[in-house]
Amino acid sequence: MTDRPIMRVLAGEVLAVPPVWLMRQAGRYLPEYRALRRSADSFLDLCYTPALATEITLQPVRRFDFDAAILFSDILVVPDGMGMSVGFEDGHGPVLEPVRSAGDLAPLDPSRVAAHCAPVYEAVGAIRTALAPDKALIGFAGGPWTVATYAVEGGSSRTFETVKHWMWRDPDGFGALIDMLTEATVDHLSRQIAAGADCVQIFESWAGVLAEPEFRRYAIEPTRRIVEALRARHPATPVIGFPRGAGRLIEDYVAGTGIAAVGLDTGVPLAQAAEIQKTVPVQGNLDPLLLVAGGPALVERAGQLRAGLAGGPHIFNLGHGIVPQTPPDHVAALVAALRGPA
Amino acid sequence: MTDRPIMRVLAGEVLAVPPVWLMRQAGRYLPEYRALRRSADSFLDLCYTPALATEITLQPVRRFDFDAAILFSDILVVPDGMGMSVGFEDGHGPVLEPVRSAGDLAPLDPSRVAAHCAPVYEAVGAIRTALAPDKALIGFAGGPWTVATYAVEGGSSRTFETVKHWMWRDPDGFGALIDMLTEATVDHLSRQIAAGADCVQIFESWAGVLAEPEFRRYAIEPTRRIVEALRARHPATPVIGFPRGAGRLIEDYVAGTGIAAVGLDTGVPLAQAAEIQKTVPVQGNLDPLLLVAGGPALVERAGQLRAGLAGGPHIFNLGHGIVPQTPPDHVAALVAALRGPA
Repeated sequence: MTDRPIMRVLAGEVLAVPPVWLMRQAGRYLPEYRALRRSADSFLDLCYTPALATEITLQPVRRFDFDAAILFSDILVVPDGMGMSVGFEDGHGPVLEPVRSAGDLAPLDPSRVAAHCAPVYEAVGAIRTALAPDKALIGFAGGPWTVATYAVEGGSSRTFETVKHWMWRDPDGFGALIDMLTEATVDHLSRQIAAGADCVQIFESWAGVLAEPEFRRYAIEPTRRIVEALRARHPATPVIGFPRGAGRLIEDYVAGTGIAAVGLDTGVPLAQAAEIQKTVPVQGNLDPLLLVAGGPALVERAGQLRAGLAGGPHIFNLGHGIVPQTPPDHVAALVAALRGPA
Repeated sequence: MTDRPIMRVLAGEVLAVPPVWLMRQAGRYLPEYRALRRSADSFLDLCYTPALATEITLQPVRRFDFDAAILFSDILVVPDGMGMSVGFEDGHGPVLEPVRSAGDLAPLDPSRVAAHCAPVYEAVGAIRTALAPDKALIGFAGGPWTVATYAVEGGSSRTFETVKHWMWRDPDGFGALIDMLTEATVDHLSRQIAAGADCVQIFESWAGVLAEPEFRRYAIEPTRRIVEALRARHPATPVIGFPRGAGRLIEDYVAGTGIAAVGLDTGVPLAQAAEIQKTVPVQGNLDPLLLVAGGPALVERAGQLRAGLAGGPHIFNLGHGIVPQTPPDHVAALVAALRGPA
């Protein structure tokens, strides 16, 4: 693993050219993905069919020579495995039978996730075998808070009204859901590591909708428990946290969770990123819409980001996932610019 | 004006009980608003009919004894006045004929806003006359960036893809739109002040989707120009800025724009708020969904916020607008808790 640039940066090394991968680097913007997608009945079938998940994971690495593959999967395989019914409707995002009270939790069982996700871990093993030795394989899961928003809202939300209502009116019941998700997430990440993931990332995509007290209780604390449990089982495996929208609380998240590296969203200014970099390696944070626009703005901004974070450990990435309408040529241009002269 | 608690805090005074108003305090959650709404053909008719705008503005002050009235209007009256066609479809938000190139700007004229919005300024005068002397009247406008997102996207957006694309691919053309909006906003706010507004607030509701360089260029710089122009014309009138989602960049926004006070969104932690308070009065930042949940969590959090910001000038408010499903009783409970013993 010592010759994998991503792993070297995660261990604190400063590389002259930052290694690069991009959130949602596999997926809808790639024609080869869309071709494969048509061969499966549903989005989750892709995740649960090891040969398909493996191929989709490898597609962008093959095309762009990224320094890491990230497992093609979804954060909702965890609630799906716990016994919630999760579906994806094309163009409408995920749909879940919502849980909204302590009573709704009774049929759910975190210990079922491992068996349910066996094909996911099989894919992890196959990907690691197929990947070149210098490429890292990143496993992932959603943060318990973020997964809970989908579980309680029954899908995506703009307001997070239902989940916050339960959180405030019945902290014990909501806390029990968070505990179940935390337990399941430890198991899910641990099995990805055992199957061959070099590191794992926790996507707390909806961290930004929490005010400070709830951020501490439902984003920092469960993640701290996940990191602690993983460290006990896999002391050499770094955990990357991605608390999207956490703003001024990113530093507290880093210190409070014990993560090895932090993904920075688009809104984090360069000076703050460089400051955080003194504590842990940072990953980010190009606006994914610059990849849609392309042109001189893309190359210029990537250069500024690279230069601004050259003084510390930096993995180049976006501040949020690639959007479907991204022209693949713009991704190629970004990678070429990064690996060109500084 | 010296006996208006809001104005005293904006001048830097620390009051034992923070004065309170709430963003979107007038509107759909109030039955008396819904009754009036049915009497008008469209949402914008309410804004352009002085008697209706006046009555709606006063409704929440009457019901809850808030320390300020905020003009009932909309940030899109500015592009509407410039010559863009703005409509509101119930339940679907605003719809605009979008501008997406320098050529689209030709028919627009910032100087038309004043005549178009004459009924708005008439409402401001009527409200000030009707308001008790100890209540402040707050005028407002959207920040040029925020209004531009609606103008370019043609309405609300989740991705801001179209506006960012134009911003990056044609900075001169997009800059011309920002300049027109800046000019119109100065005029619109200046006329509200002349008509009787005690202070004005600039809602930069979509500040949080901008990465640092664009935040400086399209959020800080136009606002700086607005503040400078208003100060020349109305040196005694404070301008409150509300850069929602600006995170670590709030301090730069305060210093760079010259605003007199800053509204803080839900995500700003108490320690950062108290730090900012050493520079300018702060306003905020209770999660508006706590007003939906109500109960002990609401009262407890309001008390924490009040106590945490008691050391400096503080106007109690939400971190974002009241949502329609808020029970009015919870608003009454909040105000009672704030004015009770600390």
